[in-house]
Amino acid sequence: MSLNTFGHVFRFSTWGESHGPAIGAVVDGCPPGLALGEADIQPWLDRRRPGQSRFTTQRQEPDQVRILSGVFEGRTTGTPISLMIDNVDQRAKDYAEVAGAWRPGHADYTYQAKYGHRDWRGGGRASARETAARVAAGAVARLVIPGVTIRACLVELGGDAIDRAAFDDAQIDANPFFCPDAAAAARWERLVDDARKAGSSLGAVVECVATGAPPGWGAPLYAKLDAALAAACMSVNAVKGVEIGDGFATARLRGEENADAMRAGADGAPHFLSNHAGGVLGGISTGQPIVVRAAFKPTSSILTPQQTVTASGAETGISTRGRHDPCVAIRGAPVIEAMVALVLADQKLLHRAQCGDVR
Amino acid sequence: MSLNTFGHVFRFSTWGESHGPAIGAVVDGCPPGLALGEADIQPWLDRRRPGQSRFTTQRQEPDQVRILSGVFEGRTTGTPISLMIDNVDQRAKDYAEVAGAWRPGHADYTYQAKYGHRDWRGGGRASARETAARVAAGAVARLVIPGVTIRACLVELGGDAIDRAAFDDAQIDANPFFCPDAAAAARWERLVDDARKAGSSLGAVVECVATGAPPGWGAPLYAKLDAALAAACMSVNAVKGVEIGDGFATARLRGEENADAMRAGADGAPHFLSNHAGGVLGGISTGQPIVVRAAFKPTSSILTPQQTVTASGAETGISTRGRHDPCVAIRGAPVIEAMVALVLADQKLLHRAQCGDVR
Amino acid sequence: MSLNTFGHVFRFSTWGESHGPAIGAVVDGCPPGLALGEADIQPWLDRRRPGQSRFTTQRQEPDQVRILSGVFEGRTTGTPISLMIDNVDQRAKDYAEVAGAWRPGHADYTYQAKYGHRDWRGGGRASARETAARVAAGAVARLVIPGVTIRACLVELGGDAIDRAAFDDAQIDANPFFCPDAAAAARWERLVDDARKAGSSLGAVVECVATGAPPGWGAPLYAKLDAALAAACMSVNAVKGVEIGDGFATARLRGEENADAMRAGADGAPHFLSNHAGGVLGGISTGQPIVVRAAFKPTSSILTPQQTVTASGAETGISTRGRHDPCVAIRGAPVIEAMVALVLADQKLLHRAQCGDVR
Amino acid sequence: MSLNTFGHVFRFSTWGESHGPAIGAVVDGCPPGLALGEADIQPWLDRRRPGQSRFTTQRQEPDQVRILSGVFEGRTTGTPISLMIDNVDQRAKDYAEVAGAWRPGHADYTYQAKYGHRDWRGGGRASARETAARVAAGAVARLVIPGVTIRACLVELGGDAIDRAAFDDAQIDANPFFCPDAAAAARWERLVDDARKAGSSLGAVVECVATGAPPGWGAPLYAKLDAALAAACMSVNAVKGVEIGDGFATARLRGEENADAMRAGADGAPHFLSNHAGGVLGGISTGQPIVVRAAFKPTSSILTPQQTVTASGAETGISTRGRHDPCVAIRGAPVIEAMVALVLADQKLLHRAQCGDVR
Repeated sequence: MSLNTFGHVFRFSTWGESHGPAIGAVVDGCPPGLALGEADIQPWLDRRRPGQSRFTTQRQEPDQVRILSGVFEGRTTGTPISLMIDNVDQRAKDYAEVAGAWRPGHADYTYQAKYGHRDWRGGGRASARETAARVAAGAVARLVIPGVTIRACLVELGGDAIDRAAFDDAQIDANPFFCPDAAAAARWERLVDDARKAGSSLGAVVECVATGAPPGWGAPLYAKLDAALAAACMSVNAVKGVEIGDGFATARLRGEENADAMRAGADGAPHFLSNHAGGVLGGISTGQPIVVRAAFKPTSSILTPQQTVTASGAETGISTRGRHDPCVAIRGAPVIEAMVALVLADQKLLHRAQCGDVR
Repeated sequence: MSLNTFGHVFRFSTWGESHGPAIGAVVDGCPPGLALGEADIQPWLDRRRPGQSRFTTQRQEPDQVRILSGVFEGRTTGTPISLMIDNVDQRAKDYAEVAGAWRPGHADYTYQAKYGHRDWRGGGRASARETAARVAAGAVARLVIPGVTIRACLVELGGDAIDRAAFDDAQIDANPFFCPDAAAAARWERLVDDARKAGSSLGAVVECVATGAPPGWGAPLYAKLDAALAAACMSVNAVKGVEIGDGFATARLRGEENADAMRAGADGAPHFLSNHAGGVLGGISTGQPIVVRAAFKPTSSILTPQQTVTASGAETGISTRGRHDPCVAIRGAPVIEAMVALVLADQKLLHRAQCGDVR
Repeated sequence: MSLNTFGHVFRFSTWGESHGPAIGAVVDGCPPGLALGEADIQPWLDRRRPGQSRFTTQRQEPDQVRILSGVFEGRTTGTPISLMIDNVDQRAKDYAEVAGAWRPGHADYTYQAKYGHRDWRGGGRASARETAARVAAGAVARLVIPGVTIRACLVELGGDAIDRAAFDDAQIDANPFFCPDAAAAARWERLVDDARKAGSSLGAVVECVATGAPPGWGAPLYAKLDAALAAACMSVNAVKGVEIGDGFATARLRGEENADAMRAGADGAPHFLSNHAGGVLGGISTGQPIVVRAAFKPTSSILTPQQTVTASGAETGISTRGRHDPCVAIRGAPVIEAMVALVLADQKLLHRAQCGDVR
Repeated sequence: MSLNTFGHVFRFSTWGESHGPAIGAVVDGCPPGLALGEADIQPWLDRRRPGQSRFTTQRQEPDQVRILSGVFEGRTTGTPISLMIDNVDQRAKDYAEVAGAWRPGHADYTYQAKYGHRDWRGGGRASARETAARVAAGAVARLVIPGVTIRACLVELGGDAIDRAAFDDAQIDANPFFCPDAAAAARWERLVDDARKAGSSLGAVVECVATGAPPGWGAPLYAKLDAALAAACMSVNAVKGVEIGDGFATARLRGEENADAMRAGADGAPHFLSNHAGGVLGGISTGQPIVVRAAFKPTSSILTPQQTVTASGAETGISTRGRHDPCVAIRGAPVIEAMVALVLADQKLLHRAQCGDVR
């Protein structure tokens, strides 16, 4: 079984391979009556679009989205919204040499082991190209949660972390790294340039903060808000770790340091004095900002030769040419944003289903 | 909506509150013909059982499981397996004072915000007591994957990490911390004792390794093996971070350091020279050991007074008496094992559904 | 895979075999704050309870339900509601002779073919005893749709149909057949007595009408309200046909006879001049009464000897002793009611999830 | 919530409106390695295609399917298969006059009531045009169950039933009615012509038989094979009743007439002497032919004026011009075939998941 659908009531399914004719997403369960046109989706795709700086892959994909269903007279109808993006800059021949060998760090071997047959062109279904479909779906999700602002940035790249004191939201879109610290962004230019020139690649950590979600979202126990966020982020290509709030650092805190104290808030809701919990307690949102971090491994496609074996079991060396991101995490930031939006839209509707008349 | 079911084809649902009459799990989709009796489940429950050392809660629960359905003449029939565990040592009155105030770090406020009505006795549904039901279900899952060995241990407690060079599987069950490093276990005794005496608590990191899973398990893209593991672990009480393989550390590796090189293996399958990937590539198992780590925050129930507010919005101080684990991660190790078993059993059957005749 | 769960957001799972220690249901996704006690469930179970007249099985089961979770201080908490009913009058030995042979019309052979191992005592999981768990869950569902009245009755038994002109709601609970036509009920006494004495059994048609559901419930296209009702009814033991509104008779109508004309209604909503559609158009409720009919085959357990084969393939004759309903449809009426309630509760919440702010 | 996905492990989702740019289906969970090209799908679409005789709508849609993903080098890869069919012969203006009024028997009013906003062009999402996407998906499903033959035909039209003694498989594709009885087909020509000329329409009953399914398919209790078939058929436009095997007629049989006796079969499996059960017992296939019948109401779009109200509540008359099928059941036959194929493919994989190693 292949599960290319995510979500419970606000759900999306994606399809398409890196070098097929197109990729797409079908969004189901979207509330009706929302104003939606391609112009609401395109800006988000543009943020993720390749080829915009020398720090991302040079594959030129315009990523123009078309809405094929589910919208009438500019508003959603509640029926499935089919979104399609043509692939226009495939170069399958770049991959001919890797058709018969497993690229280390890639899904080549595992897809072959699972399915016995795979589309090896550019990683086929396992390509990060699929994430464009997530971003398109995520743009629809944002309309479902208009009061929520979702913002992702890179807080560490190649082991070089930002200075939290220098965190400036305005910087995030002012450099090619979605980096909130101008000084760090400057350092990262050199880091990424050096890695690219060395035929290598770098990892990074993306942090995503969603503000404006009310308390009460989350569906314990096995669709807890944090569990859904963890699955959503871990399903993104190259992600190897996810944490909520202080995450792994909480394992080093003492109980009295970790638990967020409360004082009387202005509106009757408690006011939290800190947010180690990252906005989630018991799998349910607290009303504080929801904080998620995802660790991206370095791009596995590198020029540096690596040891591997062929499909027939012979040992060989491989060096991935093609056109690749030297740090796949950079374009991962808009993808994590989209996944967080998709989780929150789903959880909002789930909550309304069960608790729509609470209070 | 409340989603108390986990899994796709091998699924389990749990029910029950900390201070209700009982808790339970219903396992659905279990293959028929497996030898199963209460004696196959009880040892796993015993490992998680409270009150076995001074380092866990003193609540005395025998955690005797009963099988109420789905087994006939000692073998599973393929119909739902109902597992029930009576609660025998409730002391709801311990919680009377917290009925009207939110314990920091707990789900008290969020359950109230979501549902408008909650069982405040011992955390109700949000209590870690629910994890006994997971362990019982996990014992059934193990029977579905007889070739897979799953082993969890604590690799860091209160910020004190084990010495990897001293890792000894045999030590794990030889101390009250599931600690594979005897020297660390000795240090942790003092750490936990000190924290407990100080009315505080500690966090820890649990590492779980599953060996013996073949390549090919995992259902990309949104039920990737690692995404399912992340959701499974994050759904466990107190977990705030999950990583696969080298996890967050991969964000600091270069491409050539991170990608696991392959050489020709004895059986035609590639032999990996390292396992930074933690046994998962592209959401599908590689055949290498599957490595998951979960960060547990310190127990939120502590004697040290904390600032909070009451249900009516008045500021107050709170200090949680009751009987609590000074480090909830300790009993978390068997729970993480169970969740990994439950994911792998499900993924094995999912894989057989779609790819049962591959090769 | 075995799917013992029904519903999308209001969901229930059942477990248990006819001659195991107990049966049960776990209701998940129930809105919080609803007043619920065992006394809200018991009357519905009592209507279905065996042994209340000579026209049903003489197995004496008190069918006392216990609520084990999900309710606190008399109100639902939004967490899973575990309902358990002990089996007290098993006589497994009645079935010893059928352990090794397939009873015609029963699931004996198919369970064996599917699972290779089965609980043959009283049909095991395939027994109509399981429907008690549905009725218990259905009692909870009714609380979710307080404005909806659901009423099932038998409109045909052994080929003898009621006189529609004599339909009297008040009669339904005044005879042992849930028959709305007193004269028909009198005739049916003899029919059923005769069949029972002849060692035979009879089929019947149950009609269920739900009034009070607003327009808009239903989730097209594959969870259409009528599709969900069809699945719900067809999942009940012995049901072989389901129809909505005029059902099969519509195949004999002309377009202008079948389509329900509309006139201006008092409240702005259209007033329908007829209800051939049975309250559903395009998979969505119209606001008219929802009308479902289910055809029950005659009980397969009969004294009349039948030809069959043994598990080892030898030809034999079989005559089912045990204690059986001469017309299983009679006790089927409360079960169909429960299933309709469960579908409507789920659809109400589904609708609220997606369209909670329409208009 | 809108649920446009069907199936558990072999799943398909459809999208698209009658007068949008295209419609499509995404098939997920398909086993890899199956030979698949557009030529494997097109013939099934052609059977359902409109405009092929004077007995169906004159809308001219070539219904050319394109495969956009999931197939590589002519074989399925196990990833989602995206199927797209362009709409080329829309005439939305035909519907301008019905934009503001509810067509009786249609989903106009219910979609408006549910969503508050709808695509009124040709019924939008509620149009039978969507069933082309089902037929395309069904063509893929057939490849998953190569040993199963699925054949649907009309056994009654406008109240005129076929003569069972004259049933001839070879006739089914020899007339425009999928009618297995040549004499009936001749009579139906006149019936349909007369209805069309009278501005009316007719209903019909479709019977579908699947042979070759082994015993053991079906997932009790709530995804029973017959329950899944019932939901699948009832989800098709205009279907108001579904029955399995003898269906409603079993309600008039006595126990000894209904239960299918068994004798020793050649291969160890029992040989059934009859098939009143329609190939399903206890929700699981018996190995006999699976027999499903669906009742289609007469097409609701008729020229004969009908009473209705406008969106603003004013009474009016309506007569549906456009281009319509005088008997929508005719083109329903290939759709029912497709739905049965989709159910069986799913159940085969479900069965393999849980019971892949039974025996």
